[in-house]
Amino acid sequence: MSSNFGTLFRVSTFGESHCKAVGVVIDGCPPGLALSEADIQAQLDRRRPGQSALSTDRQEADQVIILSGTENGRTLGTPIALQVANKDQRPKDYGNMRDIPRPSHADYTYQMKYGIRASSGGGRSSARETIGTVASGAIAAKVLKEKCNIEIVAWVSSVGEIDSAAIDNLTISRDEVDATIIRCPDREAAAKMEELVGELKAIGDSVGGVVSCVIRNVPVGLGEPTFEKLEAKLAQAMLAIPATKGFEIGSGFAGTRLRGSRHNDPFTQKDGRLGTVTNRSGGIQGGISNGEPINLRIAFKPPATISLPQETVDFSGKEAVLEAKGRHDPCVVARAVPIVEGMAALVILDMLLRQEARKALTFK
Amino acid sequence: MSSNFGTLFRVSTFGESHCKAVGVVIDGCPPGLALSEADIQAQLDRRRPGQSALSTDRQEADQVIILSGTENGRTLGTPIALQVANKDQRPKDYGNMRDIPRPSHADYTYQMKYGIRASSGGGRSSARETIGTVASGAIAAKVLKEKCNIEIVAWVSSVGEIDSAAIDNLTISRDEVDATIIRCPDREAAAKMEELVGELKAIGDSVGGVVSCVIRNVPVGLGEPTFEKLEAKLAQAMLAIPATKGFEIGSGFAGTRLRGSRHNDPFTQKDGRLGTVTNRSGGIQGGISNGEPINLRIAFKPPATISLPQETVDFSGKEAVLEAKGRHDPCVVARAVPIVEGMAALVILDMLLRQEARKALTFK
Amino acid sequence: MSSNFGTLFRVSTFGESHCKAVGVVIDGCPPGLALSEADIQAQLDRRRPGQSALSTDRQEADQVIILSGTENGRTLGTPIALQVANKDQRPKDYGNMRDIPRPSHADYTYQMKYGIRASSGGGRSSARETIGTVASGAIAAKVLKEKCNIEIVAWVSSVGEIDSAAIDNLTISRDEVDATIIRCPDREAAAKMEELVGELKAIGDSVGGVVSCVIRNVPVGLGEPTFEKLEAKLAQAMLAIPATKGFEIGSGFAGTRLRGSRHNDPFTQKDGRLGTVTNRSGGIQGGISNGEPINLRIAFKPPATISLPQETVDFSGKEAVLEAKGRHDPCVVARAVPIVEGMAALVILDMLLRQEARKALTFK
Amino acid sequence: MSSNFGTLFRVSTFGESHCKAVGVVIDGCPPGLALSEADIQAQLDRRRPGQSALSTDRQEADQVIILSGTENGRTLGTPIALQVANKDQRPKDYGNMRDIPRPSHADYTYQMKYGIRASSGGGRSSARETIGTVASGAIAAKVLKEKCNIEIVAWVSSVGEIDSAAIDNLTISRDEVDATIIRCPDREAAAKMEELVGELKAIGDSVGGVVSCVIRNVPVGLGEPTFEKLEAKLAQAMLAIPATKGFEIGSGFAGTRLRGSRHNDPFTQKDGRLGTVTNRSGGIQGGISNGEPINLRIAFKPPATISLPQETVDFSGKEAVLEAKGRHDPCVVARAVPIVEGMAALVILDMLLRQEARKALTFK
Repeated sequence: MSSNFGTLFRVSTFGESHCKAVGVVIDGCPPGLALSEADIQAQLDRRRPGQSALSTDRQEADQVIILSGTENGRTLGTPIALQVANKDQRPKDYGNMRDIPRPSHADYTYQMKYGIRASSGGGRSSARETIGTVASGAIAAKVLKEKCNIEIVAWVSSVGEIDSAAIDNLTISRDEVDATIIRCPDREAAAKMEELVGELKAIGDSVGGVVSCVIRNVPVGLGEPTFEKLEAKLAQAMLAIPATKGFEIGSGFAGTRLRGSRHNDPFTQKDGRLGTVTNRSGGIQGGISNGEPINLRIAFKPPATISLPQETVDFSGKEAVLEAKGRHDPCVVARAVPIVEGMAALVILDMLLRQEARKALTFK
Repeated sequence: MSSNFGTLFRVSTFGESHCKAVGVVIDGCPPGLALSEADIQAQLDRRRPGQSALSTDRQEADQVIILSGTENGRTLGTPIALQVANKDQRPKDYGNMRDIPRPSHADYTYQMKYGIRASSGGGRSSARETIGTVASGAIAAKVLKEKCNIEIVAWVSSVGEIDSAAIDNLTISRDEVDATIIRCPDREAAAKMEELVGELKAIGDSVGGVVSCVIRNVPVGLGEPTFEKLEAKLAQAMLAIPATKGFEIGSGFAGTRLRGSRHNDPFTQKDGRLGTVTNRSGGIQGGISNGEPINLRIAFKPPATISLPQETVDFSGKEAVLEAKGRHDPCVVARAVPIVEGMAALVILDMLLRQEARKALTFK
Repeated sequence: MSSNFGTLFRVSTFGESHCKAVGVVIDGCPPGLALSEADIQAQLDRRRPGQSALSTDRQEADQVIILSGTENGRTLGTPIALQVANKDQRPKDYGNMRDIPRPSHADYTYQMKYGIRASSGGGRSSARETIGTVASGAIAAKVLKEKCNIEIVAWVSSVGEIDSAAIDNLTISRDEVDATIIRCPDREAAAKMEELVGELKAIGDSVGGVVSCVIRNVPVGLGEPTFEKLEAKLAQAMLAIPATKGFEIGSGFAGTRLRGSRHNDPFTQKDGRLGTVTNRSGGIQGGISNGEPINLRIAFKPPATISLPQETVDFSGKEAVLEAKGRHDPCVVARAVPIVEGMAALVILDMLLRQEARKALTFK
Repeated sequence: MSSNFGTLFRVSTFGESHCKAVGVVIDGCPPGLALSEADIQAQLDRRRPGQSALSTDRQEADQVIILSGTENGRTLGTPIALQVANKDQRPKDYGNMRDIPRPSHADYTYQMKYGIRASSGGGRSSARETIGTVASGAIAAKVLKEKCNIEIVAWVSSVGEIDSAAIDNLTISRDEVDATIIRCPDREAAAKMEELVGELKAIGDSVGGVVSCVIRNVPVGLGEPTFEKLEAKLAQAMLAIPATKGFEIGSGFAGTRLRGSRHNDPFTQKDGRLGTVTNRSGGIQGGISNGEPINLRIAFKPPATISLPQETVDFSGKEAVLEAKGRHDPCVVARAVPIVEGMAALVILDMLLRQEARKALTFK
């Protein structure tokens, strides 16, 4: 009940950092979809470590294999199992990290919750777990694109104190996002971000950032009030990504400072439907999509694993200094972009299926 | 599906603004708990409209009745059905609001999603729906308090641009919160907030705000990675509250601007367990509670229903001016306090039950 | 997680024998359905005690009230809460039944599971709990009838050793079923059954029986392999009815004695679709409906509560003789007919919604 | 929502007859359990085809690999992914079976439900799908044995019209069951069954049978009324096994013919708890285990795939004669024994976890 997500398009992820493989089983994928590994690999490549000099030096190819659920390149409607082998399955020598729980990492809480934990690399709390999300999200996104022309694009909008200029969320594309290593479409800000991350990598420190995401062409009517309002499920999905600390939809926290007369989005006529003049609602009203672009912002804290020495205590409570070994990302936001996109796709497709069920049996 | 929440402590809410009753059925409440209506009524009284001159003038007593699940003042372990009668069940004359969807409200999306909508007052999207959450949350909170001494306290930390001073979340109590009408423990800020809300009420405008919440004495180990990490379920719960636009845990968006060496929470020895020196993690690491206080912030937008005239279009797309009739809250945050507390209690108790199941069968 | 059923059409029942009310909340009912209490009352009247001299003498009107989810006689798509008041809310004097767990009843297991139990009348294990199923099932059945012309008819096919002659499940109607008090369409067998039940009532004993059920006009394609195959969910639903001990679909246990060459249902052309010449499959193949009538049989044990003295032990283990007070049904099958129909409707509608979701997004 | 099962011990199975692999992901396995492939392989070996001359001649080794969720031979509490490679991944030439749906098989319903189906061998409806159930059930059974000494033993109690003599379900062991190829502990009946199956194999026909199962040492209190009564979930689980047509608990259909005075199980004192003198309840009362052995019977129809020519129609409705190619089981009950045991283990462990959660928070 923890590694499952979704009601009709339901994913079950598995895998630790040093077991044989990580992956996901998808139950409820629409049948007849043209699907090959290549459809999935593109997003996994955007997620994998070692893509650039800014990221960790670990190199993992992360090749996905479809184990089940397709025949002759078409989905059968049966569970699709996806697997990515772990190249290095031997638990590593992580020095004194075995005895000293990393501050702000999951070592301590996993040990206390389960009474046992993977000996290295984060185990299930490792970012490798997100492979299942990215892989299944790529399939969901393909369904959404082909059936409804829904587009999901995420990008880095801040790193530390460096903010991107405003991005036009009506037109931003994944190609534009990928034009810089840091995945910030504002070239000037991107250069500063990359410089900062490079410096931090050199000194063994880390920094946080914000990922923005737009979901375009969502039909009116998605979201299941009250506990599964569209923004509620998006918030759950995004806060399930490692290292996230905040979520905003539409006007977010800044909107709380406005008056209603200024914040409300007046309706207007748009291509035979009602649209809104402004979009402080972020594409969702009353927990249900209104046809406007859905705009999200997700806060990522600075990665907890740093090489700088940290004064802390070991598991027994004895004072200790931790100097983390290994190769770690000084900033995760660039690699988080496809994870955010994947989570968004999982939520939207599940909600689309549920609304289609309702529509089919609605009495007019 | 939509009005259900929780895995082991599972609530199902019901009710619109003008039907016979609103309420909730709770499945999975621990048996043997001493429970009477009075245990629930206190939080409902903090939620009800008409508590003060700042709120809507509507007066609703919101008396709760326990229909099932108890005998001789003890819970039986069977479903507990709670009901609050709607005093006024007749759909009102809301003037031209029938034909003109309120900007930033749920009128348009409900109509499009369901092909039908309640004729007035918001129907299911009305704040009356939160009665089920507050009532079931009060029961969950009682279980948490009696079994683990868990305390949940929420308060208003900003209204519009008026921010509260820092509040000591280790000691803040509901009594201190209730000392001001606006439920901001910073008396000076509270006075300004109340003045602002009074002014907006007079002119028919509204304003947003932020509710903060602390959950104390949570045992280490709650939360179900990966999709039901503790912060993920809290985020879902909070974004399911009407009018919410953002969620933060611990350092939130501000934490993204820090470096890891500054952001990490070093461990230290505390009363025979490990604690952290600082608490930027907000009491959760790797999706699992670490024993420190859990700190949340939730953004509420300015209420959409205002009396000031708004230029918009009607359902047919024709230009129109909406002047909302009726009595509406100029600011919802004071009444949102018990709703936030209720949601937090629902999440924590469900997670506690799930962890107890694991602990009972863990191999040592 | 126990009083909930269904994925998209989801019911949550509540209520004990002596609390204020019993009922159900339905989440996911299609919007726009014409619905009034009368649509639900008919099946409740078929379920209520005291319908005939053969049943218990208790008289309960069981008037249903719709608390929420409709306006102007149409469903809103929001949760529908239904409530039936308990006329007598005072726990009764059930004599020594308080200290002596009734053999083959739920007194002992409820006490052990929950550490507490309702003081009389069976509490949650009472047949009054089935009111929620019958009421929600009546709504599901109305949707199925209006959208797909699906018909669900159950009847009594045996009481004790008295078997009904074969019934034509293509034509049998509820009117024909209700032509006899015992609800067996074979008039000759019905007379014998009624005579037997009358005798047993007189002497304070009870007897079991079998209820058969046919579901006609089910579209091809319902059922969700593998764990939610159509027969699997039907089996769960039927075994969740109090006093059930067995379930058969199609050829059932008798079919195990046949050879495949004799048991297989050859296909044939029927009205532009494939049908089968025989129907030993009972309308389901591979867990999925095939368009033929779905045929079920459900075994009901003799009611456990009898007036005849029983040698047993009390809760402390001391030998005792139980002579049950109160008015009890000597045979439940006649009243079980609408419960079986209700459960069938809940399963079929949930599966129909799920298949509609799939169909809407299938790639051709 | 179809290949998932369980609330706290949750399995997600995947795989068709001719894809790369079949398997299962288990979420919620208790941490710290000693676990290796050998613990799982034993039951897979009892399930695999080609065990004896009576079964299909197909030889599949069905070697299981643990992909995730363990380290140093202990479970981590994280998802356990299990995989069994399909030796032959090429869809076979199944002759005219491509155009002619096999009578009483899933070819027609899968095609209609999904609009596509695996080209050969049954795809997802193949018995290979049960590998996931058997593998995850073996792990559940190990937890149950080590924590509660719960024992689950199934055996063949009839083949066609050949019935086994009564078996002592208090003592029957898997070794005794495996003493005959057909897995019937009554040696005399077993010999007749094996002879019959041999004859049917020779002529290309098939036959059904009944599998009985006992679950011993179940603690009092498992089962979640009302929709997840213990017998209801067992019924769902068993009817989710391919080719099943019926389910009985305790006295089953035969019990419906008895009077209550004869059918009731009087209580008696047993080892410091209450037990029952007889066990017509089959170890469950009111949907909750009572501490007595749980006795089940499951009906398996004759396999649909036979070599004897069958007059039927093809997908277009044209008359045709089907002569199934390939190697098929003339009787599945011997291989169904570990599947029934696996399903039983999945249900019991999930219910045990849920009851432990309740017990931990019950107020005394």
